[in-house]
Order: sequence, then structure tokens, then C-alpha cells
Amino acid sequence: MPDALTAAKTAADAGDVPVGAVIISPEGAVLAIAGNRVQRDHDPTAHAEILAIREATRKQGNQRLDGCDLWVTLEPCAMCAGAIAHARIRRLYIGALDDKSGGVFHGAKVFDHKQCHHRPDIYDGLMADASADMLKQFFASRR
Amino acid sequence: MPDALTAAKTAADAGDVPVGAVIISPEGAVLAIAGNRVQRDHDPTAHAEILAIREATRKQGNQRLDGCDLWVTLEPCAMCAGAIAHARIRRLYIGALDDKSGGVFHGAKVFDHKQCHHRPDIYDGLMADASADMLKQFFASRR
Repeated sequence: MPDALTAAKTAADAGDVPVGAVIISPEGAVLAIAGNRVQRDHDPTAHAEILAIREATRKQGNQRLDGCDLWVTLEPCAMCAGAIAHARIRRLYIGALDDKSGGVFHGAKVFDHKQCHHRPDIYDGLMADASADMLKQFFASRR
Repeated sequence: MPDALTAAKTAADAGDVPVGAVIISPEGAVLAIAGNRVQRDHDPTAHAEILAIREATRKQGNQRLDGCDLWVTLEPCAMCAGAIAHARIRRLYIGALDDKSGGVFHGAKVFDHKQCHHRPDIYDGLMADASADMLKQFFASRR
């Protein structure tokens, strides 16, 4: 999670909402570290989780990341939760929860329906304060 | 929708599940045509809708496609519905419905929660038989 927070900080410094994600292989190697790039890339799909999944699957040459774990500083939205299911992520470690836009514990609850074909093991609240503080600071500085 | 079906056919010919998508600008210009490329690109996020949104936003230099319409041959999954909301697509035209993996009318029903910040106007059943037949034929040929 510290690497994910560093990626979030880098995103914030570049004007993007501070969210970061890291993917770890079954052997414990870092496959991808990504920060949110929506503003920089003019790409609404460039959330940290999507970028990390795309990088990790490219490296593995396989669209499924069986046995890989994803760490992300903020509860994934519905789009990212869907991508996490498609990628067959084994364990999902979440920092802060997101009652405004989250799609795991809130709203769409993407993993809770039979139309979702894979549900990772989910752990939340990991360094949640550091993640939430960074987001609060980011939005306060832009008001 | 004919262009989306052609993109779906091209996907099937290359071994990818036949789904195609087209994005039309407010002026009626084709901004993007894409077929599913998950298998070819080893990318679990490479659904037709995501690829079309990424191409259209890249062309427009804007992560929001205000006033743009998206045509897709199959009901979007939760991931793609989330991306469609993020991209602020105005009208969503759907071919066949998808009770197994859909995230618009089924399962996550992504647009139906307050955590989703934009809901397009949705029209379904457009050339649905042609789309469903292509999918059936694709899966039958692989059994």
C-alpha cells in the first residue's frame, strides 16, 4: 500500500485525483504500479486500477491475472470493480471506502451479482486514513 | 448499428467474442468504431465500448463525450456501463440484452445508483436478433 499511496501522490501533483494501485504476482513481484491519469490522458477509463491491470496483463501476456493481488488506495468504482473481476484478481486490498462513487461496498456492488463471474477476497481499511487525507487535501486545494 | 455489427463480425473472425461499438459525435460524425479485442490484446479491459470510448476521447482531447451517442451490439457489462457513465455518453443504443453478464438491465444495474454520476438515455433491442445470432454462432462454433 505505501507504493500505491506514492502513485496517488504523484497523480495529485499532476492534477489528477489521488488514487494509486499496485498489482503483485503470485510470487510476490510487483507487476504494475499506476496512478490515476484521467485528466492528463483525457481518458475517462484511465483510473489507477485499469492502468495497473492493463500493464500487468501486457507483461504476463495473459488477460487473466490468476493468483495476483491488487492494492488500491480507494474503493474501486463500478467500472474498476468490473475490470478486477474480468482480470480474475485473487485478493483486493482497499484503502479508504468511497460512499460517493464506490462500486464494491456501495451502489452497484459489482461483485454481489451472479452476472459477475469472479469475486476476489476483499480486505478494506488498509492505510485508509493516509488515503482519505490525501483526497481531502486534494479537493480542498482546488476549491 | 450496422457498423457496430460489422466490428463484432471482425472480432469473431479473429477469435474474439463478437461485440462491436460505435460512437457518434453531436454533429453525427463517426468518432470511433471498435470490436472486442480481449483475446487478441490479452487485455481484460479491451471490450468494444472501452476501446471506442478511449479512441473517441483521444480524438476529442477531452475525457467527457458530452452529446455523443454510443451504439453497442450487446448490453454492456458493469465495467463498460461504468465507463459510459464516466464518459458522459448522451444516448446508449443497445442491441441484444445479456442476462448472463449484463450490468445495465441486469446484475449491478450500474446506472441505477446514486454512486453513478451520469445516466445516459437508453434504447435497447436495436437489431438485437442479428447481434444475438452472431454470438450464438460464435459460441456454437467453439464447442
